[in-house]
Parts: sequence; structure tokens; C-alpha cells
Amino acid sequence: MTNSEVIEGVYLSSKLDLEDLFADAFRPYADKVRIRSPQDVEDPDRIRFSVAWSPERDAFTPYPNLRLVSSIAAGVDSLINCPSLPASAHLTRIRDDVQADMMAGFAAWQVVWHHRNMGHYIQKQSVSTWDQQDLSLTPKDYTVGVLGYGLMGKAIAEAVAALGFPVVAAVRKHPCEAPAAGISFERGGSSVERVAAKSQALINVLPLTPQTENILNEDLFNQMPTGARLIQLGRGQHLVDEDLDRALASGQLGGASLDVFRTEPLPGDHRWWRNDKILITPHQASDSSAAIVAKQVTEAAIAAVNGHVPENTIDRTQGY
Amino acid sequence: MTNSEVIEGVYLSSKLDLEDLFADAFRPYADKVRIRSPQDVEDPDRIRFSVAWSPERDAFTPYPNLRLVSSIAAGVDSLINCPSLPASAHLTRIRDDVQADMMAGFAAWQVVWHHRNMGHYIQKQSVSTWDQQDLSLTPKDYTVGVLGYGLMGKAIAEAVAALGFPVVAAVRKHPCEAPAAGISFERGGSSVERVAAKSQALINVLPLTPQTENILNEDLFNQMPTGARLIQLGRGQHLVDEDLDRALASGQLGGASLDVFRTEPLPGDHRWWRNDKILITPHQASDSSAAIVAKQVTEAAIAAVNGHVPENTIDRTQGY
Repeated sequence: MTNSEVIEGVYLSSKLDLEDLFADAFRPYADKVRIRSPQDVEDPDRIRFSVAWSPERDAFTPYPNLRLVSSIAAGVDSLINCPSLPASAHLTRIRDDVQADMMAGFAAWQVVWHHRNMGHYIQKQSVSTWDQQDLSLTPKDYTVGVLGYGLMGKAIAEAVAALGFPVVAAVRKHPCEAPAAGISFERGGSSVERVAAKSQALINVLPLTPQTENILNEDLFNQMPTGARLIQLGRGQHLVDEDLDRALASGQLGGASLDVFRTEPLPGDHRWWRNDKILITPHQASDSSAAIVAKQVTEAAIAAVNGHVPENTIDRTQGY
Repeated sequence: MTNSEVIEGVYLSSKLDLEDLFADAFRPYADKVRIRSPQDVEDPDRIRFSVAWSPERDAFTPYPNLRLVSSIAAGVDSLINCPSLPASAHLTRIRDDVQADMMAGFAAWQVVWHHRNMGHYIQKQSVSTWDQQDLSLTPKDYTVGVLGYGLMGKAIAEAVAALGFPVVAAVRKHPCEAPAAGISFERGGSSVERVAAKSQALINVLPLTPQTENILNEDLFNQMPTGARLIQLGRGQHLVDEDLDRALASGQLGGASLDVFRTEPLPGDHRWWRNDKILITPHQASDSSAAIVAKQVTEAAIAAVNGHVPENTIDRTQGY
């Protein structure tokens, strides 16, 4: 294998037509990588990398020489538990600053949606009614918690702090870099609970791991200030759905914004569509651009076949 | 007049019950100022200052010894053209950093509302429908213009830039302070037009003066990119209402957020309530807090009766 050879890859997904999504974006890299769908692969032994998303359980089995498996997004939870994922391949994710900006703007919008009760105005406009609200709750009085402080969480925290809200973020260990003005950290074992206890609005962007599954549950909601809001941008499996229903019904939570769900698309007959305390968006907080995916996958494939550890490689013991 | 005497003032408004709004907030300053409604004033000669908002034409006439007239908000347009406003009194406004934060968060919310077409999700939720949008338009591709670069405009520009949007602001002269990252200026005579020409979304927070009245008109809209959005947070008189209707109907503007109107409250039968390209809020982008008003008016009254120029005094030749 030399640098001048075209590296061969395969798209593997049970849910998306990855070739349709990414073929155009990979075209500028045609002299470096060639990726096909499984039915078009002539010699599976020549496949050195895979671009994957929710693959079938045995999807990786036909390819003995994989050196890289790349997610198409910031999360790898759809890959890491796949039984056929080869231990010898580097597992990478996409790290996209533009995606982080998109996520930050979306999260900040959700914070103001709840802080200012913007839905009131939309409802009142629908009945042609001028109805002012009390404006005495200032951003300074409205602490926003952030669970997950990677690329996304940091961008969210900085955006929300720039709007004047105190932000508190849960971190495993204190980042070396000092936080921007208005951001503070809770660190270590019960940091998630301590963040929740301070949060008028709680934003979740944790990675999905066995440790974080079901982390948004009744116990956590009960530690939040009465009437607090949940902004759920992580993965559907973070949330215990019935606990959210109970917390909203009792008033322990005053409302929620949900962008991710255990089943996506959320079925048309799901009770949440018609709950006026819930704002639903269809997993659109942000998205990696195909151009960034193509660039980062190509670079990672070159690194991996040349014996280097690619950038954005996942620590499989941590799960992200 | 010595510092130890209580300074007497009068509330003057044809529209609001100012005593009801502010009496509690002024209580901590009872040893320094006493303010009453006109019917309770015993000796008009003793009145040295007025807290005013949309006063009657002859409201100031009974008070020959006014040294200060203070607005209750950031704008003085409801005062400056009052025929009885005494030339010998300082005219001040409120300068409230918390209000600027509220305004910045509200404006940033409106920007994301338009950039991400958030109304789509609300409409789709109402029919229980999962319907994703194209996310390829990034914040970097979406320039936001700001007209008016005082306390409010600067806070808005910084908040919007923190979300990753390029911001261009119209200024009379370059501020001494360098702008925050992502903010650029257009300066001088046609700066408003040059800002508009670059703006996918244009935010108006200009003060209302004879120079800025009707500034949001068809000529300006025609210089904006096709489908651009207007976020109108200044005063109703900045906007030529029929020109907005035409621009929305033709598609030259793709939508508008209106917080201020020529007639407030906006009448229930107004056509704009039912225009789905317009998002209406009832003059609630932000509001000075009564506590800040009381503190700043008290300080200004003390300064004025002691022969000093109060902070936040208006330059009447500029009108703001």
C-alpha cells in the first residue's frame, strides 16, 4: 500500500442510502479514495475503510482488512455496539466547527424560547390578540445547564453565555482552558445532578454510552427547580420517556424541547405531538455537512492505512 | 437647594399610569426624591424634575422650575417633540445593561427563527408530521445587518456574532473600541443602504428621529437580497407599512418579525395578524426594569438640581 494507490472503502448502513448522500462530496477526492455500496464491491479483501451509520449486526464481517470505520456524524453510538465492528480498525467521528455553530444557535434559540415563553406570542397571534407578558425575569436570573462539554457543549455554553445567561456545565475533569465569561463547571461523580439542581433550563448533548443511557429520568428531574425546562438534543435513549410525561404532568418540569427520540421519525400517532408543553423538532439541531464528512474521512483513511492514528479517533473504553 | 432636601418630581403621561408602575421602585429613594401624579402636586413651583412618557402637549407648562425630564425607556421620541418640553431642562433616557441583554437575546432568537425557518417545525408539529428541512445554509452564509449601534445595537451585534453569523452594523462614525470578532461596520452617509444590501436578515433598533422616520421603505427593501428578512424592533414610525406588504407579497422580503407598530396595541382586525410571513410580538423585545428607572432617575435628579449634566443626557440636536 503506497500513498499513490486509491484506497477502497464501503458504505454500510441499514437506515440511510449513504452513497446517495455522499457520492458527490467524495468526488474531489477520487484520486485518493473510492467508496462503493456493498453490492458493488468486487473484492472485499481490498476494502480498507468504511463510512457507516447504523450498520447491520454482521455488516463488517465480509471485510477482513478494515483499518478505519468512520461515523458520518459527531456520535458513534450507532456503530460502537455493532458485534461485527473489527477491533483492529480505528473508529472515528466527524468534528465539524460549522456543525457546532449550527448546534449552538439552535440551542440558544431553545433557551430563549423557554426563558421568554415565546410560544405565548405565536399562540396569541393565531387569535389576533395583543397580550404582553411580565418581563421581570432577566437572563441573569435564568441559569442554563449544559450536560456534555465536547465540541458541541462548549459551543452551546459560549453562545448561551453571550446572551447574558449564567451557564453551568458538567465536566469529567476541568478543561485546561479557562471557560468564557459567564460559564462555570461542576466536576466529577455527581456533576450531572449538581448542574441539574441549578438549571432553569437544562440542555443535554451528552454522548450516548452505557453510563449516560436513561440519564434524563425522574430522579434527575426531581432535583431541578420546579417548572424547569428540558432541552434534549442528545439521543433518544438518554431520556426515560414516561418520566418526562410524569414530570410535565405534575409541573415539576414546565416544558421541554425534544429534537431526538427513541424511534425516529417519531410516529405520527405519538402522544408528544399534541402536548403543548413539548416543542418537537425532527432531529435537526445540526448536521455534519457532506463536504466536511468527505474531507475528514479521506484524511482519516490515508492516516489509517499508513499506520497512523487518525484525528478524531474514539476511545472505545469511554465510548466517545 | 442642598443635597439633604427631598427633590420633588411629577409623573407626566397621557398613556401610562406611571405612579402605579414606579411608586414601589422609588420607595428606597424616598429620602432623596418624591414624585407624584399631577393631581397630587401642591406647589408646581417646587417640581424640579419629571418622569415622563408620551406626555400631553402642554403637560410641562405648569412647572416653571424643571431641571430634568427623564424618559422611562431607552427612547425619548415620545418626549422630544412635546411643545411644552422646557429647553432649560436636561432630557435623559434610561441606559440599562440588563435591558440590552434582554434585547440581544430576543434579537438573536429572531435571527435563528428566520435562518432556520423554525416556524416550519411549529406548523408541522400542529399536524403531527416529521418533516426535515435542508440544513446546508450555515450561519457563515447568513449575514445579519444591524441598524443602530448604541447600547442595544452593540449588544445585539455581539450576541448574533457569538452564534457564528457575520454581522454588519451601520455607524455614524467608527467607534473607538474595536468591534468583537465577526462584526464589521459601514460608516457614513449611505451606510444604512450598504448594510441592507448585505443582509439576509436586517435588524432595526435605530432611535426615532426626523432622519430615521420611514427609513424602512420600498427603496431600502429593494436593495436587500431577494427573500431577506426584516426584524423590526425600533419604532413603528420607522416602517412604511404598505411597503412591507408589497415587499412580502412580491417575495422581495421573505418574512418579517415585528415588535413595534404605528398604533399600539395593534388593532385586532389588522391584516398583519393573519399574515403567515409575519411574526408579531406585542412590543416586548425588552423593557427597562422599574428598579433601574428609579435608580437612574434619582441620580439624574440629584445631578441636575446641583448644576451638573446628568449621565445619559440626550443631545437634542441629534434627537437621541
